[in-house]
Amino acid sequence: MTSALLPDALARIAGEIDRAFDLLLPVPADARAKLVEAMRYAAMGGGKRLRPLLLCATASMYGVNREAAVRAGCAIESIHVYSLIHDDLPCMDDDDLRHGKPTLHLAFDEATAVLAGDALHDFAFEVLSDPATSADPFVRIELVRALGLASGWQGMAGGQMMDLVAETSEFDLPTVTRLQQLKTGALLGAAVEMGAILGRVPVEGRTHLRGYARDIGLAFQIVDDLIDHEGDAELAGKAVGKDAGAGKETFVSLLGAEPARQRAHMLVDQALAHLANHGSEADLLRAVARYIVERDH
Amino acid sequence: MTSALLPDALARIAGEIDRAFDLLLPVPADARAKLVEAMRYAAMGGGKRLRPLLLCATASMYGVNREAAVRAGCAIESIHVYSLIHDDLPCMDDDDLRHGKPTLHLAFDEATAVLAGDALHDFAFEVLSDPATSADPFVRIELVRALGLASGWQGMAGGQMMDLVAETSEFDLPTVTRLQQLKTGALLGAAVEMGAILGRVPVEGRTHLRGYARDIGLAFQIVDDLIDHEGDAELAGKAVGKDAGAGKETFVSLLGAEPARQRAHMLVDQALAHLANHGSEADLLRAVARYIVERDH
Repeated sequence: MTSALLPDALARIAGEIDRAFDLLLPVPADARAKLVEAMRYAAMGGGKRLRPLLLCATASMYGVNREAAVRAGCAIESIHVYSLIHDDLPCMDDDDLRHGKPTLHLAFDEATAVLAGDALHDFAFEVLSDPATSADPFVRIELVRALGLASGWQGMAGGQMMDLVAETSEFDLPTVTRLQQLKTGALLGAAVEMGAILGRVPVEGRTHLRGYARDIGLAFQIVDDLIDHEGDAELAGKAVGKDAGAGKETFVSLLGAEPARQRAHMLVDQALAHLANHGSEADLLRAVARYIVERDH
Repeated sequence: MTSALLPDALARIAGEIDRAFDLLLPVPADARAKLVEAMRYAAMGGGKRLRPLLLCATASMYGVNREAAVRAGCAIESIHVYSLIHDDLPCMDDDDLRHGKPTLHLAFDEATAVLAGDALHDFAFEVLSDPATSADPFVRIELVRALGLASGWQGMAGGQMMDLVAETSEFDLPTVTRLQQLKTGALLGAAVEMGAILGRVPVEGRTHLRGYARDIGLAFQIVDDLIDHEGDAELAGKAVGKDAGAGKETFVSLLGAEPARQRAHMLVDQALAHLANHGSEADLLRAVARYIVERDH
């Protein structure tokens, strides 16, 4: 593994995802233009593209055509972006800053932000259901199923609800763990799962990939809590110190900062162990796991 | 055709859709309970279930298994319900009343309403992608595609954006027609299309069904405008007189009430003509077309 593996992969996927959104979301010549401009504002030019990266890195282990993987990556990123738009709304987290830019409801208006989130939500399923993503309808419907289950009430949306309830409840460590597995982990898990679906890995061959995704998902959230606890808003590109302000229990508040950091490192070691039977084709997934505990934003 | 055909069909589908939501949305025993309770509050026990009715009526013309059609009906109704939840939000139409009950953001809170809408949005694709809807992955992915295109920026969400722009623009009749074809017509069209997909009607055999759906969709909206113009909030189960208040052009403001009513009747005649080559198996679609111009709420 060369040390440039991850930076190169991050730069590559960022360009590919921006180009895909640009191509797949042309601004129409009627009053819907404002909606599509809002979708593009939120979806393009920002974010680490971690979910598309995980999806493409997994797909490439199984020889998947890059264009198909990028399309599926664009779909999962659309779900991530829509969730951020709605999460940033005044009635939710009321955030002003996202990826270093004003949040969508400030750059446009609240009604447009609600609609643009909804339209990006559909866009994900539109992209996945298009035969350009895979000629095989079974692959396409499995992608839809994996993403739909990960984003709905059984996954991300359920985790977001638990997060709202957390403001007025005393959650213990198992409950916070469950909350985060749903809120962040479900979609990170879907990224890996979708790469495996494109690679036609049978369900029984995905166990180690699911283990990897579960571990890096929790490590990711612990590091997010550490960044929120200690971080720098300018570097993070979003508001920090919010969880303590909202009276929410986090891994840091429940464990303490140093034990939380140790737990994140342990989870990454465990994630790497899940990949032990893979050769160099899994080096990018390994680099992502290490990056997750080393990042500062 | 017996005169009880439509009332019987409406009562039947209402029961079936409520039972399907009840079965498919069990309240979990954790902090996600509030989310699922909000989804159930909005989705169950109200609404005419016109989209599931159209879907099931079309599917039954082609001998589709009823349970499969009701599942797909439940999916399209989820999209309709989610769009109403978000449309009723304070930053959108700010409505207090829906199906004669307090709107979801009043019965619960705004954040829960945003999330419950999002979760119902996913739920639609979750239900369609489940093998219980069809054993054939091609049928399932075609259902997803039809619904995704009808609800996203190219369809319903695009129409809602045009509707927001309409408050500050002077739209002419062709633009209002286009707006309504997207905002309401796209999903009504998808209902008929999805019935045909379940019935394995090839694309080239769906032209007359699409014509039928386009005509009843516009007629439906003209009658909605007439109800908003003349109607009774208690009967409508929602606020009326809103369009004039918001300074929006409608079919009624552009054409006048009586010519608008005549146009709705003409569209229904045209919709019936599209079904001319069908026998009694299309009687329910015919009854729906007639009902659309005769309803007062």
